[in-house]
Amino acid sequence: MNRIPFPQPLRTIWLDENQRLFVIDQTRLPHEETVVELRSLEDVYQVIVQMIVRGAPLIGVTAAYGMWFAAKEANELEPQMDLLSACHKLKDSRPTAVNLFICLDRVMEAIQTCTNKEEYIQATLQIANQLVEEDIEICYQIGRAGLPLIETISKQKGGQTVHILTHCNAGMMGCIQWGTISSPIYQALDKGIDLHVWVDETRPRNQGANLTAWELERHKVPHTLIVDNTGGHLMQHKMVDLVLVGTDRTTRKGDVANKIGTYLKALAAKDNQIPFYVALPSTTIDWNIYDGIQEIPIEERNPDEVRFVYGLNSNHQFDKVRICPENTGAKNYGFDVTPARLVTGLITERGICKAEESDMLRLFPEMIK
Amino acid sequence: MNRIPFPQPLRTIWLDENQRLFVIDQTRLPHEETVVELRSLEDVYQVIVQMIVRGAPLIGVTAAYGMWFAAKEANELEPQMDLLSACHKLKDSRPTAVNLFICLDRVMEAIQTCTNKEEYIQATLQIANQLVEEDIEICYQIGRAGLPLIETISKQKGGQTVHILTHCNAGMMGCIQWGTISSPIYQALDKGIDLHVWVDETRPRNQGANLTAWELERHKVPHTLIVDNTGGHLMQHKMVDLVLVGTDRTTRKGDVANKIGTYLKALAAKDNQIPFYVALPSTTIDWNIYDGIQEIPIEERNPDEVRFVYGLNSNHQFDKVRICPENTGAKNYGFDVTPARLVTGLITERGICKAEESDMLRLFPEMIK
Repeated sequence: MNRIPFPQPLRTIWLDENQRLFVIDQTRLPHEETVVELRSLEDVYQVIVQMIVRGAPLIGVTAAYGMWFAAKEANELEPQMDLLSACHKLKDSRPTAVNLFICLDRVMEAIQTCTNKEEYIQATLQIANQLVEEDIEICYQIGRAGLPLIETISKQKGGQTVHILTHCNAGMMGCIQWGTISSPIYQALDKGIDLHVWVDETRPRNQGANLTAWELERHKVPHTLIVDNTGGHLMQHKMVDLVLVGTDRTTRKGDVANKIGTYLKALAAKDNQIPFYVALPSTTIDWNIYDGIQEIPIEERNPDEVRFVYGLNSNHQFDKVRICPENTGAKNYGFDVTPARLVTGLITERGICKAEESDMLRLFPEMIK
Repeated sequence: MNRIPFPQPLRTIWLDENQRLFVIDQTRLPHEETVVELRSLEDVYQVIVQMIVRGAPLIGVTAAYGMWFAAKEANELEPQMDLLSACHKLKDSRPTAVNLFICLDRVMEAIQTCTNKEEYIQATLQIANQLVEEDIEICYQIGRAGLPLIETISKQKGGQTVHILTHCNAGMMGCIQWGTISSPIYQALDKGIDLHVWVDETRPRNQGANLTAWELERHKVPHTLIVDNTGGHLMQHKMVDLVLVGTDRTTRKGDVANKIGTYLKALAAKDNQIPFYVALPSTTIDWNIYDGIQEIPIEERNPDEVRFVYGLNSNHQFDKVRICPENTGAKNYGFDVTPARLVTGLITERGICKAEESDMLRLFPEMIK
């Protein structure tokens, strides 16, 4: 890996004119704006595991480029065996987001007819590039679908500020451009709608404080950072008009796995009659499972992510502080599942549907069994 | 203020043999075990405002000693005027916890018949010392009242580990000794009951990670640190048998103000049919108000508590790290209100009651209007 300065205009993953692949190092934001060059399958695996890239759509696309490296590194005689093994390795990198599996399956499908190493290299690159463009278009369409929600609330409030609460980062930093929840927000802002975003810090890794706040500042969206504990109080006092979150995997009946803590916000939204919407590319829907609480594997990560907090220290250096006694043990579950009954609706690239199988299939009839 | 090493056995506030008053500096725990000597009304005011002491019962008792200093500092001719002004100053130190007001009212009542400065000094010291002993006895009785709850769950589980989730610190560090929620826990442990505590870190000030984890370690109570986002997931997966929290003010109808985020845990407990109990000395009940959401003032603190996290840095020094972009704004509400409908019961020094006026008055008939 090689660190170089930030490019403009910004994507989260891109090839330069020499076909060199870069990603933004999201573990260093907002304190350092650096990019990392990926040069091998192992690099791709490591950036996913270490969360240098994160966010379900971005993980999926990055893994697809991992298959391109796998093709380049493959044995001349039997490249398909090496590609299959690379696919397994990448699928093991993170367990909860389903885009990873879907993108890798798309790659495997795209290379079915390849007969030699050069064809594998060309085909993997082509499908990875295509997944990038698809994600950008999908996020744009999610914005078009979600915009009327924000417009309606704005009208109901007579043009007063629309307050949106979000958890974690489902912005462009979790995708390629636009982002899922941020696409309707950016499109609403472009239409002159007065809005403001409450940004949950999102412990343990603080993707809200690190990434969402940074991204919203770049896009000049008014926003305020809060601790994850605050949302319920805000909702009780009518300071939130809409909760908008992303998802790492949504089941056929509309259960939503997302960053740990999302379920608590959904409960508070329900208790205070505040709409709770999930913005998602349809690649995030796992049509093969129903019950999210029973069937979605929840990643358990290193307890030190709980015990330590990263940031900029008093000397303006990137550092971590331990927040508990030296020998305190911790548990670190990465995600939770919000049952469909708490979800007002899903905002997809094909429009909005209820979080229930029949209405999801109305938008995606090709998934009728 | 003067820093000296920790004494044994431990109380959170004490007079030494020379009538010098000490408190534990809770902003430095668990990284530094230091005590602070309080020498004036202003010292007392500052340790409350700066949260060097915190926790509703401890704030109340500390403020009472503030009145002792006020008496010593008072004008010889008209000491009562200075004491009245000190009382106002101390009541302004923190707005949410009601013990502060109740303890100060107890002091004002106790000095009604004083006629000269020496009498004021003696009377304030006596009532402050009395409040200390009362708090210790009350917390012990809360433990006796709460113990059967834990015993019953243990029996229902055939002696398997009872998992208790708590938020913030309602242990001895928020009181003098025993603590409110920790008293039943310590008494259950003494009876040999197998139990384990999930400790919410409790952002923004991390009293869970800093104080509760430290205190439970000292008392050899098995425990695990989690981020505030995790409780819902644990409850969905039957990994919590009982939620036990403290309170800063509880209304006549049983609405409970406690550390921000408590409401979210109460919602999750209700959604998963897990008992949610609040342990409280009756001095925390504000019999004058009904609707907690409308009537309890919620303290808003410095946004930097959200933007920065304190702990021990890589060089083992006490430091802070900024977790967001330099110019990100934040909001910092200290408490939220859990409506009585989400509270299974209140554990008081006189026994357990439902969070509703009639049942609370059964235990405290002297409060019938």
